[in-house]
Amino acid sequence: MTDLQAYMTDLGSRARAASALIAKATTGQKNAALQAIAQHIDGAREALLEANGQDMTAGREKGLDAALLDRLELTPARIDAMLEGLRQVATLDDPIGGISEMKPRPSGIQVGRMRVPLGVIGIIYESRPNVTCEAASLCLKSGNATILRGGSEALNSNQAIARCITLGLAEAGLPADAVQVLDRPDRDAVGHLITMPEFVDVIVPRGGKGLIERISRDSRVPVIKHLDGNCHLYIESDADFDKAMRVAINAKTQRYGTCCTLESLLIDDAIADALLPALAAEFDKHAVELRGCAKTLSLVPTAIAATEEDWGEEYLAPILSVKVVSGLDQAIAHINRYSSGHTESIITENFTKAQRFLREVDSSSVMINASTRFADGFEYGLGAEIGISTDKLHARGPVGLEGLTSQKYIVLGDGHIRT
Amino acid sequence: MTDLQAYMTDLGSRARAASALIAKATTGQKNAALQAIAQHIDGAREALLEANGQDMTAGREKGLDAALLDRLELTPARIDAMLEGLRQVATLDDPIGGISEMKPRPSGIQVGRMRVPLGVIGIIYESRPNVTCEAASLCLKSGNATILRGGSEALNSNQAIARCITLGLAEAGLPADAVQVLDRPDRDAVGHLITMPEFVDVIVPRGGKGLIERISRDSRVPVIKHLDGNCHLYIESDADFDKAMRVAINAKTQRYGTCCTLESLLIDDAIADALLPALAAEFDKHAVELRGCAKTLSLVPTAIAATEEDWGEEYLAPILSVKVVSGLDQAIAHINRYSSGHTESIITENFTKAQRFLREVDSSSVMINASTRFADGFEYGLGAEIGISTDKLHARGPVGLEGLTSQKYIVLGDGHIRT
Repeated sequence: MTDLQAYMTDLGSRARAASALIAKATTGQKNAALQAIAQHIDGAREALLEANGQDMTAGREKGLDAALLDRLELTPARIDAMLEGLRQVATLDDPIGGISEMKPRPSGIQVGRMRVPLGVIGIIYESRPNVTCEAASLCLKSGNATILRGGSEALNSNQAIARCITLGLAEAGLPADAVQVLDRPDRDAVGHLITMPEFVDVIVPRGGKGLIERISRDSRVPVIKHLDGNCHLYIESDADFDKAMRVAINAKTQRYGTCCTLESLLIDDAIADALLPALAAEFDKHAVELRGCAKTLSLVPTAIAATEEDWGEEYLAPILSVKVVSGLDQAIAHINRYSSGHTESIITENFTKAQRFLREVDSSSVMINASTRFADGFEYGLGAEIGISTDKLHARGPVGLEGLTSQKYIVLGDGHIRT
Repeated sequence: MTDLQAYMTDLGSRARAASALIAKATTGQKNAALQAIAQHIDGAREALLEANGQDMTAGREKGLDAALLDRLELTPARIDAMLEGLRQVATLDDPIGGISEMKPRPSGIQVGRMRVPLGVIGIIYESRPNVTCEAASLCLKSGNATILRGGSEALNSNQAIARCITLGLAEAGLPADAVQVLDRPDRDAVGHLITMPEFVDVIVPRGGKGLIERISRDSRVPVIKHLDGNCHLYIESDADFDKAMRVAINAKTQRYGTCCTLESLLIDDAIADALLPALAAEFDKHAVELRGCAKTLSLVPTAIAATEEDWGEEYLAPILSVKVVSGLDQAIAHINRYSSGHTESIITENFTKAQRFLREVDSSSVMINASTRFADGFEYGLGAEIGISTDKLHARGPVGLEGLTSQKYIVLGDGHIRT
């Protein structure tokens, strides 16, 4: 066994042991721990900024680009946001122990389901120290033990945050091993973490598509994964033009870099002549480049020709692909072929077509007359979000506390036997 | 690309295409297909028995043992049971399209969840032709396309059943590719089936532990798996003796070969002297061999000494391991260490201890004062069962129609945009 293997095995077995204790922690204990962690982080602001300063210096020396350095940086405002996040998770309802669907059976037993933690959750993320705090708080509140593996560039920042978490857990009488932050930068640590099903119940990778694809391919532990968001808006022939215009502009331009940003616009043949030029003029004001099908090009002279690749692209930029389609069937077929299964919306006043779109589009969020930008755990009322799952099994769509839990069956009898 | 690869790719892409059609089939269509399949099977009894006769002859020549031949055999009574199963699945509520938790959000949108099929389900099972019919009916009713891979010894029987399924699907206007039964016996077919995530959304293996472990290890598609059932009953110090006796005997002796059969009995130190000898006498009447801890041996002279292996064993036979424990904490710790996470029960009149057991035992079914033999989809009211999951993600415990579905978010707006 290599030194790293021994380290990971030790980490894993300690997480497994802690998971039994954190699973039975009371709501009061978990909330007290969250508040205490916030207090310790508040009291350690200087130490946090100093540790982060070391990471930033090393990052600059390593030549990290501006975007990476921005994500790595802790500022007083970002520390405030971490504190607010912790306190907000403390206010959320505790999902653990909730019993539902209890019903009597002909045999006389009562059967229902109790919500329980998943066990040990491994989180793999890039060099964003605030994720350390956020992920730990969600796993803690949902009664799970966590192993956190942040990007190596944030090692000092993450260790400083980890110390505050450890102190907060101890104050609430909870085991320090309930939240473990890897303190070794070894690249191979991830490889071990995702192949220890005996110690880890689920992996949540947060980061770029490459990281997530690699982890999904190699993991022997189930992965709750979020790949890209190639989101569509279909303006149907019975659309209200005002709503169509408002939603299309908002979905594309409110923020360019999010996974629920609109990337591909479909517009019905019957209304393309009437609507598309006006819509294009509006997108032009926002300097959004349109890449269109032949019909789009004939209606919008400023558009450039879309290639086959464009239909599958998540631009995360002021670029939008536009296709004129001949009716609902073609729209749904196009979406189910090219979409990444994240979020799609239809604009229509027609009830039956709206219902068909809702039912037949196979994505984690399907919307009627609403901006794709709503696809978010906070907007959906989950209170928090550890990611957005584009998988079908287990959690699908925004994943909040409930997505980090499971349900077991419970049976109440009075000496009942099977005959 | 090998010939087998080409065959599997063709099969997979046809299943994927069919899944979009079966997903939007109406409840009426799906029920009509189930009834029509039953009619065709009823009308093809002779052909089925003849095909099965070929498999049985080949099986005997190959030297299959009696248990395997028994599972392989189709009899008129077993065909009746298949028909009844099909008709019963037709009477179950259609889970697809159900909308729940719809609620307004401060932004003005309404958010809820709609139940949807998983897509394409691959089922891998041993040489039991009735599973072909049962698995197909559950996947069909839950709106999924299926690829069925039964044991090669049942190839002729499965093809005869497949022909009836194809005819029934066609009569109801559903695509034949919604249920595909592999007609090649190649061993490598399974290897392909579990590594085509582009075509298959989930794998359900049904069979022995070896098969399931191998598939879980090699699969690149999520697996709903059921490993062994090492089920425990803990007779707590506040147990009612009559209930304890009744439940213990039923849980062990009602059927020896099921996964929810009792395999390990824990009894509290405080009542072992009073209860264990009487219980042992009762087990003796059923010729159940007891393998006990030192304390058990001192109270039950006929018991033999248990080894460390016994605590983890799923006997599926008239053998029971027995351990005297000193209280609830030790009982829970023993269970969470040795159990396979299937089903555990406590006998107690003490409310607080019952609640702790319910909460702290980490198994897919946890019971109070009831026989472990109740852990079954029919007893729980699921109406049908494709297996019992000992996993934590997605379905846990008996898996019925709902376990073969997922939920997507739906958002209803009126031109709402994010601000």
